Formats: sequence, structure tokens, C-alpha cells
Amino acid sequence: MPPHPVFPIANLARSNETTILMVVLDGLGGLYHPEKGGSELEIANTPNLDRLAKSSSLGLSEPVAPGITPGSGPGHLALFGYDPLEHEIGRGVLEALGIGVNLKPTDIAARGNFCTLDQNGAITDRRAGRIDSAIAADLCAKLSTIKLPDIDIAIHHVKDHRFVLILSGEGISPDINETDPQTLGLPPSQSHGASIQASNTAKAVNHISTQAQDMLIDQPQANGILLRGFSSLPTLPKFQDITQLKPAAVAAYPMYKGLAQLIGMTILPTGTTFEEEIETLTRHYADYDFFFLHYKATDTAGEDGDFDAKVAALEDFDRQLPYILQLGADVTIIAGDHSTPALLAGHSWHPVPLMLNSRWTHGSENAVFSEAYCSTGSIGKIPATSIMPLALAHGNKLNKFGP
Amino acid sequence: MPPHPVFPIANLARSNETTILMVVLDGLGGLYHPEKGGSELEIANTPNLDRLAKSSSLGLSEPVAPGITPGSGPGHLALFGYDPLEHEIGRGVLEALGIGVNLKPTDIAARGNFCTLDQNGAITDRRAGRIDSAIAADLCAKLSTIKLPDIDIAIHHVKDHRFVLILSGEGISPDINETDPQTLGLPPSQSHGASIQASNTAKAVNHISTQAQDMLIDQPQANGILLRGFSSLPTLPKFQDITQLKPAAVAAYPMYKGLAQLIGMTILPTGTTFEEEIETLTRHYADYDFFFLHYKATDTAGEDGDFDAKVAALEDFDRQLPYILQLGADVTIIAGDHSTPALLAGHSWHPVPLMLNSRWTHGSENAVFSEAYCSTGSIGKIPATSIMPLALAHGNKLNKFGP
Repeated sequence: MPPHPVFPIANLARSNETTILMVVLDGLGGLYHPEKGGSELEIANTPNLDRLAKSSSLGLSEPVAPGITPGSGPGHLALFGYDPLEHEIGRGVLEALGIGVNLKPTDIAARGNFCTLDQNGAITDRRAGRIDSAIAADLCAKLSTIKLPDIDIAIHHVKDHRFVLILSGEGISPDINETDPQTLGLPPSQSHGASIQASNTAKAVNHISTQAQDMLIDQPQANGILLRGFSSLPTLPKFQDITQLKPAAVAAYPMYKGLAQLIGMTILPTGTTFEEEIETLTRHYADYDFFFLHYKATDTAGEDGDFDAKVAALEDFDRQLPYILQLGADVTIIAGDHSTPALLAGHSWHPVPLMLNSRWTHGSENAVFSEAYCSTGSIGKIPATSIMPLALAHGNKLNKFGP
Repeated sequence: MPPHPVFPIANLARSNETTILMVVLDGLGGLYHPEKGGSELEIANTPNLDRLAKSSSLGLSEPVAPGITPGSGPGHLALFGYDPLEHEIGRGVLEALGIGVNLKPTDIAARGNFCTLDQNGAITDRRAGRIDSAIAADLCAKLSTIKLPDIDIAIHHVKDHRFVLILSGEGISPDINETDPQTLGLPPSQSHGASIQASNTAKAVNHISTQAQDMLIDQPQANGILLRGFSSLPTLPKFQDITQLKPAAVAAYPMYKGLAQLIGMTILPTGTTFEEEIETLTRHYADYDFFFLHYKATDTAGEDGDFDAKVAALEDFDRQLPYILQLGADVTIIAGDHSTPALLAGHSWHPVPLMLNSRWTHGSENAVFSEAYCSTGSIGKIPATSIMPLALAHGNKLNKFGP
């Protein structure tokens, strides 16, 4: 039997009564800060994580490959066991997932920017001065009235100058080029496509672009639009088919719900805080045997380059960890989709601390949960796609391979 | 977009103002010597390498795969980011590069040996008693007068009984078998090839072999030739296309210049000593953003099985390291193409110490540059092909993967 397209354990997975809890601290990994004398995890006071580490297996996970900085899409796909180099998610699709737009398989999503054009139609600002969200939302409503003969369009405001364009209809294709020339001094590009479907779609996109300029002509800043990242939902094998798990996702932010939904997880309605996420998890704990629980605050602080805020986010998480652990999952994974060191104020390529706890793991009295300690851990440095096979193994959910 | 055939970062690389310096200490890795009480790196007094280690990320690089001892060709290709199992360099081509022969893409190179034949034409010594270089050079000049109707031949002496045969012409193919039966008591083999081009080439090779025996009939030792490793230049994707770097190579020995040239690096003319190499590097430092700097003495001493000479070579390098570091490269890599432990008097399969320094790396006060310390380093043990992606990441030369 050939290996499964997603991970090699597909034919080995078996259902049983154990429960796996995967807690993803977004952007978990950090870097030593010379002025602070340690990394975010090392400086943070995290007694509960450190106590868990003493009975856990520790290691580092590599989301894509050495040196590669992953976006949120590839980072999460890898944690769920999908090789992110094999399964790409388009920018338009991710942007749509990020604001909770429900895409149909035939829909095309694009990321849009309002931009500023001069009297010759050349771009002078690709972000229209990062126009105010309230104004941009009004302009999106206006553009939503653009009509095309065979294609329905929807325009959803995201934030500032950013929006999502959704095209719905028969016989359309995302294989078209973007209208953003990625440089100033040029007009928005004409889109085109090689196939008949792509060519028709490109014509529709060019029509939208021109119509938008007509409708925005009196705007001082946002008098044009740029569209890129045309994409449709990827077809991914279902998580439950590969793992024989009954999976549920608990995430406050739309993008992570969207990513989980892409692979077939049930999305549990929850609130906007991590406390509410834990309540949701607790309420549904008996109904599923796999949970993806997402914690966002670590990434936000890292992206802001705010070392102290990331330390605080880790400490906040640590205070809530006992409420998660008391559920008594058979396998608990503490992982990150990528590193977001405050020192870099963005995602980075560094491997991410990883902790796996089950009745079969055994730690050390000296263990703490930090980048440095995890780099010496018994798991070693593994591809993030290996976390799910390890979790299933620790849940006694994998048959022996071969006779 | 599909991943690049060479490394997955091809579509992510971006040019910027940072400079990457890759220093290759040939045969860098060593082994613990029971009588010396340490490895070459551990016994050598290398204060500058050790000081650099305290602010660097350390690890081990695996040139090909566990247990595989690489030649110089695969060892260097891996450092440059090319999977050496995917991109093979023929023995004839490598021998030609080693003596600085400029091969055209259609040329075929073979490695030649003078051998001794008995009165029945059977081989009695595959190396003709390791005949003196001066005699062999004269014989090579003599053989160079062999004429063929459609193929030009050139014969370049290498050392002792070894030479390189170059065939140039239209409609020739390296897919022919060698004339060296690799055993005594048999005559040189007849070459043959399956395709028309290969068959013609094999006939030419057989003609050369017979002609050579006629011309060498009065020689007491070198009265025959053996030819093997027929090969043409591999077609490798250009380093600059993959990395968006402007690369230059500084190497005193022809083989390393040849390997760098294979992937499109500019070869900077330099002298025969490492001091001259550093002068060359310094003079051209502003003109490129990637430098491959080659240090040969470590390998030579290791190949000789001379532990003390390898220690001395490491100490010599260490004394010159400050002149390299004062150039202020944004990313400095200290690496080796393979290990050459004096204890083994040859290349070996052992992973090679690796040091990466940039403003984003952070070491430890206890760090030293040694096999043992590197095996505990934060980089871990990585394929040598991952060094370039890591170097690019540390030079801020890679875009994020995926949205």
C-alpha cells in the first residue's frame, strides 16, 4: 500500500477511548534578548508549565525546514500533520478564513488593498495611507454593488486598507495574475489567464478594478484597488480519515477556526477570551477525542516586538494551564505553530519548544519549559508533522507497522 | 508554485544589503585520539574560534547521510545547498576540475591510470608502480599526439601514474563502460555503449587504448592505460538564481574553484596561500554579497594521518580568523565539507562541526568550537544542505513561506 498522501500513519490509526489535547501557543518560540538576559519563556514565571515539563518529553519542532519562516497557514497545517510544502494555502483564502468568511469549494478569494492613484492612474501609495477602518468599511459596502453578468462578487472589509474579494460562479479559475504591480509609479496591472476559464475570470477582475476606480474617483486617498493572492480552498484529506479521531477546534480568532475547518474539524462556538475557550473545551470535553485549543496572545505580543508583553502572555497562559490539565487528557501537547521572537517583531525560522505529556512520558526534576532546555530534550528536533504521529502513539491509537 | 528542485527556498530568496561569508575548513571534523586525549579541534589552541563560538549558534552538519563518507565534490555541493544524491559529479569531471582544466559542456572527461601489462597483455600492476611524475608527464605528452577522425583528444598529467583524458567533438556520449577491469590478470576491458553516440565514443576509446599500448611498448612499467569515470559537466541550477546572491569564490586549489564555477560563482584570482586568499577576499569584499572562502591545510594534514599537523593547521587558521572577522560580514559560517580525522588518515562519515554567527545568534559563555560542544549546540545536527537556507534566514534574505 503506498504511503498516505498526508502522513505515513494513516493506515495504522485506530480509534480508542483516549483523548488527545493539542494546545497551540501561537508564535510560542522566542529568542534570547541581550538586555533581558534570556528568552521570553526563560524570563517568564511559568511554574505550571515547568511542573508539567518534569513529567513530560521535551523537544523542538521545525514547522517547515531549517531557515524557513512559516506563515500561520503552513505553521498550523504542519502541527495537524500535513506537509506544508505539499499543501499550500492561498493568500486570498487565508485572508477570507481570517475574517470568518465561509468559502464554497468553487469560490475564488483575493486579498484586496485600497491604494492611492495620481491623475495619470499611477500608484502613489499601495496602502492608501493605511486609511481609517470606518471609511474603508463604507467603501467596501459601496464596491459590493458592482455587478457582473455571470459572477457574484462580495467584498468584505478586513482592517485599515485591507479587504477580501470573493468571486462566486460557474467556470471561473484562480490561475490569474494579480493586479498589484508591487511597486509605485505604475498603474494597477491588467489581469490575464491562460485557460478560457482563467481568461474570463481575469476579464471580470479587470472590470471590477476599473469600476472601482470610477466609483472611488472623488476619494482623496482610496481611489483605486489592488488585488492579489487569487486562490480557492485547497482540497485536503480529512483529519478524521487519517487519524480516526473525532476532532474539535476551540479558537477565538476566525483564521484558526478556518484552518481547522479546512481539514474537517468541528468548530466549537466560543467567546473572544482564552477563559471562554477553556469553558468551551470543558463543556464539550466528553464529546470528542481530539481538541485543538488555540492561544493567540503570545504571537500578538511577539509581532509587536514587545518582550514584556510576551512574557506576560506566557504567564497568563500558565495561570490558566491548571484548568486545562484538570480535564485529565491522556495526551497533552504544548506546541507552537512557529516562533515569534519579540527581538525580531515577527514570525521567525527558529524551531519551536514542544512538550508532550502522557502516562508514558517521563521527565527530569531539572526540566523547565524553555527553548534551551527543549533543545536538549528526549524528543530531539523533529518536523512539526511528526507531532501528530507521536501524539497518536502516546494515546495508544496506532497499530504496529508491518508484521 | 512547485518547490525548486534544489532547495525549497528558491522562491523565497530576496536580495538585500547583507553579506554572507562561508568559510570552509576542508576536512574540518576530527576524532578523539586516545594518545592525545582529545580531537584535533579540542587539542588545538584556538582562542578566536572559541571566542566566536560564545556568540554563535553551534551544531553539526551531515554532508550526505549517516555513515556516508563524502568526496570533495558531494561535500561542497551540499554546503552550497545542492543535494549531493541528486546532483552527481563524475570522477573524470572532478579530476579535470582538480587540475584546472576548463571543460566545455559537450566534453567528456575520464580519469586515466598508467598500468603495467605482461607479455600476454594482462594487467600486473594497475598503477604502473606509481611511476615517477616526470616520466608520466612525458608519456602524457606522447599520448596527446594520438589522432582520431572526428574527436579531439587531450591528455593532462595529474600526479604519479594519474592523468585526465578529455574527448571533444560532436555526437559523443559519456555513457560507456570503463576499460579498467579493477582486477589483475585480465587485459584492459573493451569499452562499449548502447546508443549510437555511445558506441562511437566507445570505439574511439578502444582505439586510444590500443594506440597507447603501441606507443608505450618499450616502457618497462607504464606500458598500458586504464580509463574510468567517463563523465560530462553536470547541469546544475545556478546558485545566484536560487539564492538571489552575487557569489564569489576564493580558493587556492583548482578543484574548489572548479566546483564553485560549476554552480556559477565568480572565481576571484588569488595566490597559493591562505594569507593571499584573505587579501583577495578583503580587496573584493564590497563587490559581492556571498563569499566561499576555502582553507585546505586541515584536510591535507588529516589525510596524512598527522594529528599534530592538523592541530597546527587549525591553529594557523585561528590566527588568521581576526582578519576575516574584521570585514564585518552580517552572517559568518564556519563549516567543513566533511570530516578528515587524523586517526583515520582519510575522509570520514562523521558529522562536521558547524558555527553560524549573526546579530541574531546567541551563544553561551561556556561554548567552545569542538565536535563535542557542537553536538550539544542549538542548531542540532542538520543536513549540510540546510546551511544555506539558515544563512539566508540570518541575513534576512528569505521571505515568509505561505500566508
